[in-house]
Amino acid sequence: MQKNKENLKQLIRAGRGLIPAHTVIRNGNLVNVMSSEIYLADVAIYEDTIVAIGDVTDYIGPETKTIDATGKYLVPGLIDGHLHSECSKLSITSFAKAVVPCGTTSIVSGLDEYISVSGLEGLHEIFAEVKASPLKVFWGAPYKTPYTFPQSTVAFNFTEEVHKEVQQWPECFGVWETVREAVQVEDEDTLGAIEQAFKNRLPIFGCAPMVGGKDLNGYLCAGIRLDHESYDHTEVVEKMRKGMHMVIRESSVTHFLKENIRAVTEVNPYLARRVSFCTDDVTATDVLEKGHVDNVVRLAIAEGVEPMTAIQMATINSAEAYRIDHLVGSISPGRIADILLVDSPENFQVEAVITNGRLVAENRKLNYDLKAPARSSVLSSALKCKKTTREDFEYKVDIENGQAKVLSMDVKGPFVRKRRDVTVKVQNSIVIPDTEQDVLMVSVLERFGRNGNKSLAFCSGWNLKKGAMASSAAPDDNNLIVMGADASDMSIAVNHLIENGGGQVVVADGEIIEFLPLPVGGIASDEDAEKIAHREALLTKAANQLGCNLPEPLMYMFFLPITAIPDYAITDVGPVDCIALNTFDPILELIQD
Amino acid sequence: MQKNKENLKQLIRAGRGLIPAHTVIRNGNLVNVMSSEIYLADVAIYEDTIVAIGDVTDYIGPETKTIDATGKYLVPGLIDGHLHSECSKLSITSFAKAVVPCGTTSIVSGLDEYISVSGLEGLHEIFAEVKASPLKVFWGAPYKTPYTFPQSTVAFNFTEEVHKEVQQWPECFGVWETVREAVQVEDEDTLGAIEQAFKNRLPIFGCAPMVGGKDLNGYLCAGIRLDHESYDHTEVVEKMRKGMHMVIRESSVTHFLKENIRAVTEVNPYLARRVSFCTDDVTATDVLEKGHVDNVVRLAIAEGVEPMTAIQMATINSAEAYRIDHLVGSISPGRIADILLVDSPENFQVEAVITNGRLVAENRKLNYDLKAPARSSVLSSALKCKKTTREDFEYKVDIENGQAKVLSMDVKGPFVRKRRDVTVKVQNSIVIPDTEQDVLMVSVLERFGRNGNKSLAFCSGWNLKKGAMASSAAPDDNNLIVMGADASDMSIAVNHLIENGGGQVVVADGEIIEFLPLPVGGIASDEDAEKIAHREALLTKAANQLGCNLPEPLMYMFFLPITAIPDYAITDVGPVDCIALNTFDPILELIQD
Repeated sequence: MQKNKENLKQLIRAGRGLIPAHTVIRNGNLVNVMSSEIYLADVAIYEDTIVAIGDVTDYIGPETKTIDATGKYLVPGLIDGHLHSECSKLSITSFAKAVVPCGTTSIVSGLDEYISVSGLEGLHEIFAEVKASPLKVFWGAPYKTPYTFPQSTVAFNFTEEVHKEVQQWPECFGVWETVREAVQVEDEDTLGAIEQAFKNRLPIFGCAPMVGGKDLNGYLCAGIRLDHESYDHTEVVEKMRKGMHMVIRESSVTHFLKENIRAVTEVNPYLARRVSFCTDDVTATDVLEKGHVDNVVRLAIAEGVEPMTAIQMATINSAEAYRIDHLVGSISPGRIADILLVDSPENFQVEAVITNGRLVAENRKLNYDLKAPARSSVLSSALKCKKTTREDFEYKVDIENGQAKVLSMDVKGPFVRKRRDVTVKVQNSIVIPDTEQDVLMVSVLERFGRNGNKSLAFCSGWNLKKGAMASSAAPDDNNLIVMGADASDMSIAVNHLIENGGGQVVVADGEIIEFLPLPVGGIASDEDAEKIAHREALLTKAANQLGCNLPEPLMYMFFLPITAIPDYAITDVGPVDCIALNTFDPILELIQD
Repeated sequence: MQKNKENLKQLIRAGRGLIPAHTVIRNGNLVNVMSSEIYLADVAIYEDTIVAIGDVTDYIGPETKTIDATGKYLVPGLIDGHLHSECSKLSITSFAKAVVPCGTTSIVSGLDEYISVSGLEGLHEIFAEVKASPLKVFWGAPYKTPYTFPQSTVAFNFTEEVHKEVQQWPECFGVWETVREAVQVEDEDTLGAIEQAFKNRLPIFGCAPMVGGKDLNGYLCAGIRLDHESYDHTEVVEKMRKGMHMVIRESSVTHFLKENIRAVTEVNPYLARRVSFCTDDVTATDVLEKGHVDNVVRLAIAEGVEPMTAIQMATINSAEAYRIDHLVGSISPGRIADILLVDSPENFQVEAVITNGRLVAENRKLNYDLKAPARSSVLSSALKCKKTTREDFEYKVDIENGQAKVLSMDVKGPFVRKRRDVTVKVQNSIVIPDTEQDVLMVSVLERFGRNGNKSLAFCSGWNLKKGAMASSAAPDDNNLIVMGADASDMSIAVNHLIENGGGQVVVADGEIIEFLPLPVGGIASDEDAEKIAHREALLTKAANQLGCNLPEPLMYMFFLPITAIPDYAITDVGPVDCIALNTFDPILELIQD
């Protein structure tokens, strides 16, 4: 997306019609998101750039390809305004194969999970993979890694010093997901990242769920431009009145569109101008069943948003929020040729996709064979932690037999854990998990070979009656998380992931029930979305059979290390009180028999 | 406007209400340009930043000042989206004194006239002057200097190499006034400036009057973001449909608002979103009589634009076009506290002005004594050209007596000169100016001590019956221009400017009739607008008395060196054919008696 004098000369000539276009799209209805108009207009493309709209007769040479768009609507490629593609467990290549045919041609992402497991070396490898794919990634440099308070362990610490370097890179378009707590505690690295962003004229992307009033004012004073996480539409309205861009999230686990969009449909239609969409965390299953950003467009239309407005939210509004509207977000001369052929603005079925001037997908399938790159050791190395034994997952206390009153982290939603005090048995100085009372053990093991940390605590809500489950994909740190009713099964689950270079596993009675390998950094796979979705369904089924009836048992588990959301979490340094922002002792009281 | 960790901490605390605000504005009606709403809301300010809107009770400490805005409307400070303040002949200090009380708190400017006469050294001096003033300048680095084709002479050549340095400066917010011709001829320095802008993520400001179709497409392919010069509303509509932001110009000599705004009021109200305002070239007289950007707001309202929309055009729309909306353009937490107290959105009379958190103007007057800085030699040195004699302004030819058919540049508007062929007398090998036929001599003298260039040609439309007039302020080069019916008076005029360090002068019968000194770089003055306006009126009157009936005789003269607009111009290298982009011989034919 960089320009130099030589390609500028070519583009200027192509724009003037002095050299022929490579491709023209003829007879389509242009959905002009800049003027909110729909009219018949042809489009001329030179290399990866739109060089003319309107009459393109003079742009056609003997070699020019023609795409006939009769009866179709030409829509700019869709932009996902905030996404951790890693959460889908699909590698960039597999993710592109899944979402580009749905019309998603750009995503804004921190690629932060990759960074947490493989540092800047891995990030460069991912940048190269992006470049070879039909999907664009507008990268925001994570405000810091790890995101956690107190600080947990990741493969690479993203600091102020790192920002000084990476914000100069052409791939960098802003500061990613600057969470409110980090601003509020005046974290030095976070403020350093912001200082650099002002210097480098980069927008600062935020993350401020359930924040309003004075806390919001303080947060905005740090220069935060936008947010993607509001729990209701009144929160959206307050943030927008105070000058923020709002990226409405419709993820696989949090369905906010229907509620958040009321800010526009019920409160103030003018707000539409600065509303855009994101899917944040999305499963392969959801992409296959519902689609991606195209699905959010359809949902918005179903909620009463005008089709043109909904399309603008998915294109130019995101581009303006992220200051990338000179590159993408509209079908205008000089912009990159990411163009969709759609049946109608109302139905919004994406029938063909052009990215970088090339027709890459038709009928919801990529029209060529896109292969994942070979992975260097930095992204394919084994989990760097020691094999475990059952003792590693037994909670030892100072009394021999009796009872322990414990603080169990009780899951109340994908990201929300509340306090639950439960009394369980102590036998032979071990606090015993209690399936009757739904008290399981949960542990996070540092897996980058940095310190061998291992935490242990109690959790509720998963209702496993036996066995264990584990995952090396666990945002934001992606340390190894394991949960279970049985210390032996927990150890088997962990060891299986260590032996197989990462993945997700369900174990019962000493046996591996289901296993999904995630060989790319222990967090992603190069398999197609169909295979991953199938495997995920099997994992869920296995967890269900162990007694868990949460909608996404492993996802609810792997969000446990996120400390940014109240009230409790667990990282490799221990169970965390997310309000006090410190670790805590889960043993509240011991009663000797 | 830069941030560092220390001031970020203060702002975050102030935003959270942990430390008291310096000032609160109470009981005003907030004109919220982000949400298009007007409602009662207080504003809290800490240092130069807005830290809260809404209820500010908790932000008040014992030292907090209160501004009572009962019955008033709080409007963001106005932004002039494209301005050469130098054209007013007011120095930055004098200009700020004139326009800040009208509500203009920010201007986007290339400061290009200062650069053309004093280079980067002078520019730094101007930056310091800006900083000490209540006016913000968002500086765009001129795409190149000189702007001319073929290349004329200025004090400093702004090249690709210069862009590599200055685009890193915190003062730089884009590339200034990249004219279409320079892009079209694929000028190396221009494309180099654009290459750097892509690298530095800076917007590229354009200048493309009367351009459409394929020429516009080619221009947009170079990444140009916006334009400020459309001659009618259909031109506006085409540019906006093709993705441009449109800065409507209402200058002292070109009144485009009434016509251009029809793009919004008649063609497509949605376009309003990306329309903003500028005054480009404005006289002190106009500012005093009509106001500044506030006047453009009132004009837009008079043309049927909703007051809220017109205010948005003058504030947030400009801020978004120039990607400075994180700093200015709205009354939101985290933005700089540039706030106006206005009587009503409909009347739009600016009654008080707050800039950088400080009340600086009331009742259309600055409330403190703002002094111009001392000028270093780079901005106060004399004109570096040799004294002239009458022979310098006599056009010599190879015949002794007879007739010459000459191409006279015939002025048809402030910037437009058309071809006029006239036959005049030759006596003693000199082509004689002919006041009967309205054929005058015009000359441009290089005045930076670089090469001593001097051009000579013929012009019509000014109708001087005798005498001469000269100016050392003459955009974009600001070489010394002189025009007259008499070579002797021309020489006197030029010599007077050389002796007095620049200015504007009218001479007749060997006498100085009127003289306006411009000691700041030969282009501006530290006198107040009232004095300059008075002097300008006297100059105009003097020119009128010599026979000229153009609305702005000297302004029409000093625009003659601008080569960007068809059909003819004159620079120090000679008279220029602006279509062919080369110099020409104004003698078409010689007929010996």
